Amino acid sequence: MKVYLDNAATTPIAEEVLQAMLPFMKERFGNASSLHAWGREARDGIEKARETIAKKLNVSPNEVIFTSGGTESNNFALKGIAFANKDKGKHIITQKTEHACVLQTCKWLESIGFEVTYLDVDKYGMVSPESVVNAIRKDTILVSIMHANNEIGTIQPIEEIAKICKEREVYFHTDACQSFTKEPLDAEKIGVDLITVSSHKIYGPKGVGALIVREDVKITPLMHGGGHEFGKRSGTENVHGIVGFGKAAEIAKEEHVKHMKKLRDLLIKRVLEEIPNVKLNGHPEKRLCNNANFSFLGIEGEALLMRLDARGIACSTGSACSSRKLEPSHVLRAIGLKPEEAHGSLRLTVGRQNTEEEINYAVDVLKEEVEALRKLSGLV
Amino acid sequence: MKVYLDNAATTPIAEEVLQAMLPFMKERFGNASSLHAWGREARDGIEKARETIAKKLNVSPNEVIFTSGGTESNNFALKGIAFANKDKGKHIITQKTEHACVLQTCKWLESIGFEVTYLDVDKYGMVSPESVVNAIRKDTILVSIMHANNEIGTIQPIEEIAKICKEREVYFHTDACQSFTKEPLDAEKIGVDLITVSSHKIYGPKGVGALIVREDVKITPLMHGGGHEFGKRSGTENVHGIVGFGKAAEIAKEEHVKHMKKLRDLLIKRVLEEIPNVKLNGHPEKRLCNNANFSFLGIEGEALLMRLDARGIACSTGSACSSRKLEPSHVLRAIGLKPEEAHGSLRLTVGRQNTEEEINYAVDVLKEEVEALRKLSGLV
Repeated sequence: MKVYLDNAATTPIAEEVLQAMLPFMKERFGNASSLHAWGREARDGIEKARETIAKKLNVSPNEVIFTSGGTESNNFALKGIAFANKDKGKHIITQKTEHACVLQTCKWLESIGFEVTYLDVDKYGMVSPESVVNAIRKDTILVSIMHANNEIGTIQPIEEIAKICKEREVYFHTDACQSFTKEPLDAEKIGVDLITVSSHKIYGPKGVGALIVREDVKITPLMHGGGHEFGKRSGTENVHGIVGFGKAAEIAKEEHVKHMKKLRDLLIKRVLEEIPNVKLNGHPEKRLCNNANFSFLGIEGEALLMRLDARGIACSTGSACSSRKLEPSHVLRAIGLKPEEAHGSLRLTVGRQNTEEEINYAVDVLKEEVEALRKLSGLV
Repeated sequence: MKVYLDNAATTPIAEEVLQAMLPFMKERFGNASSLHAWGREARDGIEKARETIAKKLNVSPNEVIFTSGGTESNNFALKGIAFANKDKGKHIITQKTEHACVLQTCKWLESIGFEVTYLDVDKYGMVSPESVVNAIRKDTILVSIMHANNEIGTIQPIEEIAKICKEREVYFHTDACQSFTKEPLDAEKIGVDLITVSSHKIYGPKGVGALIVREDVKITPLMHGGGHEFGKRSGTENVHGIVGFGKAAEIAKEEHVKHMKKLRDLLIKRVLEEIPNVKLNGHPEKRLCNNANFSFLGIEGEALLMRLDARGIACSTGSACSSRKLEPSHVLRAIGLKPEEAHGSLRLTVGRQNTEEEINYAVDVLKEEVEALRKLSGLV
C-alpha cells in the first residue's frame, strides 16, 4: 500500500481541476493581454478564477493579485510594503515560527536598513496578541503573522492581531497558505490588509498563488513590467495555472475539512496511545484539520522518514523546503523543544484523498519502525 | 479559417510538451524538495529539464535558475545585480527598445538611488556597440541589452557588446525570451553572464522561465525563502511547468526556424508588394525568423486588428502586455517613427504550426481590410 501523508508539502491536482485546466493548455492558449479572440478567452478564464478566490476570502476581485505561489506572495507583501512605506517607518513585526520565505525576506530587509522584531511564541507555537501590542512602535509599518503554521499546525489569533493593527493604523499581513479553504478567513470581517494564498496546497497546480491586497494598501510591485494584475504584478499570466487555482478553491468543501479532522484525530489518538515516549507538537485544539506533528524520543526523524518511505509512506520531518538541511527546524526550536526532541520529529499531514484504512496502515507501520529504530539504538 | 499570427505574444503548447507534463500533473505530483519517493520523482523531472536548458545555451545545469517567466527573470537579473553589487557602483546601462519589464525595473531602481543610461537605437532599432563603450563608467555594474526585440524583431549585436563588457569587467545580461531556440546563443562562447529565457514563447507552458546565472556572478535573490534553486530562487518548484519547458526546448528544431523564415518572407513580400503605403519596421536582415511588423499609413492599428480578429486572424499592435494602453509603442517611437506611422502599426508573428495557406489567406484579408479602412477614412 502506498500512503501519501505529506499533504502540507503539496497535494495532488484534483481531477476536476485538471479537467478545468486542460482547455487552457490546448485550444484556449492565448495570452490574456491580447485583444483578439484567443486573448479574450484566456482573459475570461482568469477573471472567473479571480472572482472565485475573491468570494472565498470576501474581498473584491480587483484585490486578488495572482502570483507564482506562496513564496512570491510573501516576498511581495513584505518587500512591497517596506519599499512603499519606508518614509513612514522602517519597522516590521513578525514571529519566530513563520515560513522561511517570511523570515529570510525579513533578514534581507534588515540588511538594507529595515528593522524587524521577531516575536516569541509559547510552547504551542502561539503568539500572544499582547506581545504584538508591546512591539508596535511609531515607525512600525507592517505586522506579518501567519494564519496557521506549516510544521505544527498551530492556528494564530489573527482576529485579535488584525484588530490591534487596525486600531494603530499598521498594515497586517497573514500567510494563509496552509489554512486557505481549511479555516474560515473573512478578510472584510477580520480587517486584514494582505493575505497570501497558494494553489498547490489545496489540490490545485504548483506555480500559482495570490496575494490579496486590499484596495487602500500602498505597495510596490515585486515584478515590474507591462502592468498586469492592476499594475501590481507584471508578467504574462499563467492562465492554465490560475484557472486551476480557481477551480481548486471552488471545489474545496466543508466536508473535506471534517474528513481530514477525523483522520487526523484517529492518527493522533492511535500514535499517542500505542507508541511509547512520543509527544504531540503544536496546539492540542487550535490546530489545522490536517496536521499531526510528533516527537519520537530517541529517534532520528530522518531515519524514520526513510524507513517509512521504503514501505510506501510519505511524510516529512519539517517543512518540505527545509528538508534537505541538517539543522533542527526553527519552528521546533521556537516552541522550546530540546535538540533531541526536535531531531526526533515527524510531520504527517492528511488530505481529503486519504482513507481510514490508509491511516491505520500508516500507524501500524510507524509503530513497527519506531520500535525497530529504538532497538537498533539500544533504547528498547 | 482561423489563423493565429501572434506567436510572439504566446504559442500553443506542443502536444509532446503536454504529454511530458501530464504525468507530473497526475501521479508524479510530489514536492521536489520532499525526501520521499514522490519528492524524488518530481526532483528527477526538474533536473532532466535543467540539463536540457543548460545544454541549449552551453552552460552548466547549476547555472539554470528556474523562475515563473521572462518578467521575473528580468526583474531578478536587474534588481539582483543591483543589490548585490551596489558597493561597487550604482550605474546600469540598457537601451530604449527593451521590454517593459526591463525598462520599468530600471525606472524603479532609479527611484531608489541607482543611475540608468538608456542608449538610443538607430532607425532599425539597433544599438551600436560603440555607444555601449562610451556609456560604461567606473561605477557601471551591469549592461542589459536584449537579444532580439519582441515588437520589431531586430537582433542586437550582443557578441560585440558581451566582449566589451567582459573586457571592462561589467556584468552583461541579455533578455533572450524572443530569440531562444530561434537564434543561436552560446553563453560560453559569447561570454554572457545572465540570460533570460521563457517557456511559453517556445511551445511550452506559461508561468515558467529561467534566468541563466553564470557561476561567478554575484546576485541577490528576488525571492527569499527556503533556498530552492541553489539558494538563488526560493519557492516550491512548478514541476510540471519546468518539465514542459524542458521538453519544449528539447523539441525545438532548426527546421522550425527555416519554416518560420519561409512564411515570414512570404508574408513580408506579399504585403510590401500588394498593399500600397506600407513600410516594414525593424531591420531588413537582422531580424527574428518569425517577426513581421508593418506601418500602414492612414490606418489605426487597433481598428485593423479588430477587423482581422472578426475574420479569425490573430495579431497585435505592439507587445501583448502593452496592448491595452493607448500610447504608441515605445519601441516604434525609439526607432523614430512619426506618431501616425506608429499608430498604424501591426505585428504579425508566425509560428511553426502556421502554413503557407494560412499566410496567403491572412494577406488576402489584410489587403481587403486595409483598403476598407482607408476608404472609410477617405484616404483611398
